[in-house]
Amino acid sequence: MKERTAEILCVGTELLMGNTVNTNAAFLGRELALLGLNLYHQTVVGDNPARLREALMLALSRADVVIATGGLGPTYDDLTKETIADCFGLPLELHEESLRAIRERFERMGRTCTMNNNKQALLPKGCTVLPNPNGTAPGCAIYGQGELAGKLAVMLPGPPREMQPMFTDHVAPLLRRESETRLVSRCLYFFGIGESALEQRLHDLMANGQNPTVAPYCKTGEVMLRVTARVGEGQDEEALLGPTLDAIRDQVGEYLYGVDVDSLEHALVAALGERGLTVAAAESVTGGLVAKRITDIPGSSGVFHCGVVSYSNDQKQALLGVSPDTLGEYSAVSAQTAREMAAGIRRVSGADIGVATTGNAGPDASEGKPVGLVYAAVDSPWHSRVLELRLDRGDQDQRETIREMAASHALHLALEACAKQPPSR
Amino acid sequence: MKERTAEILCVGTELLMGNTVNTNAAFLGRELALLGLNLYHQTVVGDNPARLREALMLALSRADVVIATGGLGPTYDDLTKETIADCFGLPLELHEESLRAIRERFERMGRTCTMNNNKQALLPKGCTVLPNPNGTAPGCAIYGQGELAGKLAVMLPGPPREMQPMFTDHVAPLLRRESETRLVSRCLYFFGIGESALEQRLHDLMANGQNPTVAPYCKTGEVMLRVTARVGEGQDEEALLGPTLDAIRDQVGEYLYGVDVDSLEHALVAALGERGLTVAAAESVTGGLVAKRITDIPGSSGVFHCGVVSYSNDQKQALLGVSPDTLGEYSAVSAQTAREMAAGIRRVSGADIGVATTGNAGPDASEGKPVGLVYAAVDSPWHSRVLELRLDRGDQDQRETIREMAASHALHLALEACAKQPPSR
Repeated sequence: MKERTAEILCVGTELLMGNTVNTNAAFLGRELALLGLNLYHQTVVGDNPARLREALMLALSRADVVIATGGLGPTYDDLTKETIADCFGLPLELHEESLRAIRERFERMGRTCTMNNNKQALLPKGCTVLPNPNGTAPGCAIYGQGELAGKLAVMLPGPPREMQPMFTDHVAPLLRRESETRLVSRCLYFFGIGESALEQRLHDLMANGQNPTVAPYCKTGEVMLRVTARVGEGQDEEALLGPTLDAIRDQVGEYLYGVDVDSLEHALVAALGERGLTVAAAESVTGGLVAKRITDIPGSSGVFHCGVVSYSNDQKQALLGVSPDTLGEYSAVSAQTAREMAAGIRRVSGADIGVATTGNAGPDASEGKPVGLVYAAVDSPWHSRVLELRLDRGDQDQRETIREMAASHALHLALEACAKQPPSR
Repeated sequence: MKERTAEILCVGTELLMGNTVNTNAAFLGRELALLGLNLYHQTVVGDNPARLREALMLALSRADVVIATGGLGPTYDDLTKETIADCFGLPLELHEESLRAIRERFERMGRTCTMNNNKQALLPKGCTVLPNPNGTAPGCAIYGQGELAGKLAVMLPGPPREMQPMFTDHVAPLLRRESETRLVSRCLYFFGIGESALEQRLHDLMANGQNPTVAPYCKTGEVMLRVTARVGEGQDEEALLGPTLDAIRDQVGEYLYGVDVDSLEHALVAALGERGLTVAAAESVTGGLVAKRITDIPGSSGVFHCGVVSYSNDQKQALLGVSPDTLGEYSAVSAQTAREMAAGIRRVSGADIGVATTGNAGPDASEGKPVGLVYAAVDSPWHSRVLELRLDRGDQDQRETIREMAASHALHLALEACAKQPPSR
């Protein structure tokens, strides 16, 4: 099976100086990996022809396909096309169709097409032109000759909203035509187990580097495992992936909350929707983050009833009906208060499931409650639970982490309540 | 003045494969530029010792300072330290203090420190250790000897929340010590004016490239201008910065909401605190984001009363007292509803200032209200206002942007109300 290697070369001083975050590299990395190309290097250079030429020749020396982004614009420092065409020994020629498209675009926008915009219609002789319906600069693909035989260089515009559709509509089909294998993957989402603990349990699976491969990705309090198989002509992807997925479930299935679900909030909104359930949130320590994360998901309005952020004791009593005795005896940061908040928001909202958070996110201990002490609660007719969490990790700036973790626990409790709903209901 | 060149080398297969967007490179690019170092290349390689070695040697051949991120973790594929130490001809040694810090961290979290975590306390012999109060892996700096004399390699952990403070607290001072000038800067925060409009008005100031320099940074709906002066021995920073700051205020002062304030929510919490005022939020389209952003700020509990997220009409009536007639006649997405929500949350909470949002964040038009139509309102005894906003930008995935923008407008309205408070109160 012929393996091909791709390399990403991003051009732009704004990327070097950090004025723009390089989301193009991430997009292209994902897409190229999915197309089955190997990726070993990614390079950023500024708008400087000498350094661009050097970086391009290095990339062509180690990869079959080089995808360059940026530097196709109309201004004097946009030199990607000129430089790359020169490396391939090709002159630039006016591409009439692109010139027409650029002029029409300017007309539609009621703007004048200045001379330097014409520069964008100059393309390497004999290239494959990649039209740009979302901007002025067309992209292009060059197949190398002579010393560069077998090499492919693709030039794409820098703005993501122009680059991404151009890649999807024109470059991916072109690369797919030349490929004999494809990559398929499943993403497994875990909560409640750290990366190193998970790796220890799955060490053999992750270290062998076989087909499929297993790779972990962390975000606050969560681990995602991507299982990727390279599928050849006539091979069955389920048969390739199945044994590895089963082995993972055997080892750490108790922490798995979903496959290809994206996030806890996506999983929760989907689980609620499937069961026709609704949720409401009463938040103290998370200050609106639970509600925010649920309502991030399009379509959440069908399953999310309402949220109350009650920072003060008065509001916990007035809006949620937490008893003054509970607050007096156990304080606001207690399992009892969390339980009453969850029950209270369920009563106030009429939702099937109520979740609540209370705790101390810091920076300082408060009323004898240490930083990181958090209670998360869920209440429903069939399942209630309170968790006591110690989220202090001794970090300098851990307020955000504590709040993020507290919200994740609340979302996870709600997801657990969905799963526990008796089938008879 | 001796010019120095730095190069950024990010290590991680997750960066190559696009599972993680490389925000570290952007952060380091900005910071290194501010420290006055030249930046010409940025490279990403996977967790592969041979390619890492090759990339490191290439970087050391063209730069004085190489900053590497990632691959310092406990697992078998974290090999940055081993590889770089080997390139510098240094063995790894156990660093007792780091081992103690790692163990203490695990104890605090009530978790067991496994053997693979000890690996993180192995550091190149003679290196400068960079402590990591936000994670387990310490960083380190190596000054080259022999062929690598004059070269500095710095290794930082990959997670941004560990890497950024380590750079700021330890690496920047180290780089600054070797410099003959220092850079001072002021960050000016603007809301309600786009980057290109701001650039047009300040074109001469921004284009001249003199001392001080003026550089814009965008985030959703906001622009920050960083004014940076290079200050030599015996020069006065105020005298260098003053004329430029004055010129900016002259041109675009009406959009300026703060200097060195970090964000709208920081500015709001500070303004409320100074005046002894409180705020409460009633949110529909922003779904908790206004409350979340205010409570992100340490100390916000003193100024933030409470928030209500009312996604449904029932909850707008029940929790906020919005009149059914208003909802019936004008619908939930209307100036009238926004106004009643702001007044309602103020009444319910007893806060001095109430803010509210209602609108349609998409993905689809709803009840005749187009995607991006948002109303933001503020209510206080001395100042009330409703804004009608059109936040549709025609992008494919703009839900997050619309919600972020809507929340920013609500925060800005509250800030405006603070500023308008009559002095007699």
